[in-house]
Amino acid sequence: MELGPVSPSPLARLVAEFHKLPGIGPKSAQRLTYFLVRAPAEQARSLAEAILAVKERVVFCSRCQNVTEGNPCALCRDPARDHTRICVVEEPLDVLALERTGSYRGLYHVLHGVLSPMDGVGPEDLRIKELLGRLEGVQEVIVATNPTVEGEATAIYLQRLLSPLGIRTTHLARGLPAGADLEYADEVTLSRALEGRQAF
Amino acid sequence: MELGPVSPSPLARLVAEFHKLPGIGPKSAQRLTYFLVRAPAEQARSLAEAILAVKERVVFCSRCQNVTEGNPCALCRDPARDHTRICVVEEPLDVLALERTGSYRGLYHVLHGVLSPMDGVGPEDLRIKELLGRLEGVQEVIVATNPTVEGEATAIYLQRLLSPLGIRTTHLARGLPAGADLEYADEVTLSRALEGRQAF
Repeated sequence: MELGPVSPSPLARLVAEFHKLPGIGPKSAQRLTYFLVRAPAEQARSLAEAILAVKERVVFCSRCQNVTEGNPCALCRDPARDHTRICVVEEPLDVLALERTGSYRGLYHVLHGVLSPMDGVGPEDLRIKELLGRLEGVQEVIVATNPTVEGEATAIYLQRLLSPLGIRTTHLARGLPAGADLEYADEVTLSRALEGRQAF
Repeated sequence: MELGPVSPSPLARLVAEFHKLPGIGPKSAQRLTYFLVRAPAEQARSLAEAILAVKERVVFCSRCQNVTEGNPCALCRDPARDHTRICVVEEPLDVLALERTGSYRGLYHVLHGVLSPMDGVGPEDLRIKELLGRLEGVQEVIVATNPTVEGEATAIYLQRLLSPLGIRTTHLARGLPAGADLEYADEVTLSRALEGRQAF
């Protein structure tokens, strides 16, 4: 991006760095940069320190592959959790979403992505090997990948991998989301809600 | 935001810091945080350093109030620019936009905001005093605030302030933007284009 003679290098450099982050285009990158120029020095330093702290102190749990400060992570170390159940998710944020429900007491496994041949992401790019290495004593693997094309393909891949090992493999129910309006539900959601209909 | 036991403090802290930036909600802040966790350490360090460099090396030009590394800035020091003309803008980004046109050879003055009584922004919160202090030898002030309610109010305020001093005060032409479709132009734009019609 051409910033011209009025844009000295530290500004152009910060714009470029912000632009590398996901979802931040050139305009947003400029806006963030000028915001920080005007912000109190304390706020900018605090942000820079937080970025460095994350890189220094956050590691991947050697068991569940989630991000954590201690290894193994608090969840994997918790004896109160059900260690016979593993819920497989795509991203660390998915663990937070499931924990917020308060309805799950098992362990997790974070794949850090989904199978996506188009983007060159194969099984060896995900933490699948690590999942296979921690199946001792596990009775159920709940595959909670997103209901997208890639998420479903990854789920099927895992199911085929795990079933021969005698491990019960399940996936999250598909159906109408809470508060939905039948009239506006898309065909795929409605078809799946019908297929998965349950007795009262 | 509740991040739960799986979110150790450095992560929660970085999410909170990102969330303080304009246009970044809690979800985006989480996404940026986990992106940096997985990004190469070099990229995170580079971003942190760029933030610190901006705060250390970027100052406000004591003449035009634009952000700059040297004071006065390159534009104010340039003898090839027309020092009898000052274009008043709201933000540093507006200077970049005007410079990109290549049609203006005068100087600038950055207000760092607009008058907005609703938000408690009065004349003393903008760099208006600094503008009045650099009018010697100036023949024209082009007020290039945005064509919004606040921008127009600020323009009228400046015009009333400058006219008694015998300085020609102009504003940018209002009319149809390049490539516009008359059929879809809003009434205000079209009215102004009519009012400001020009002979061939």
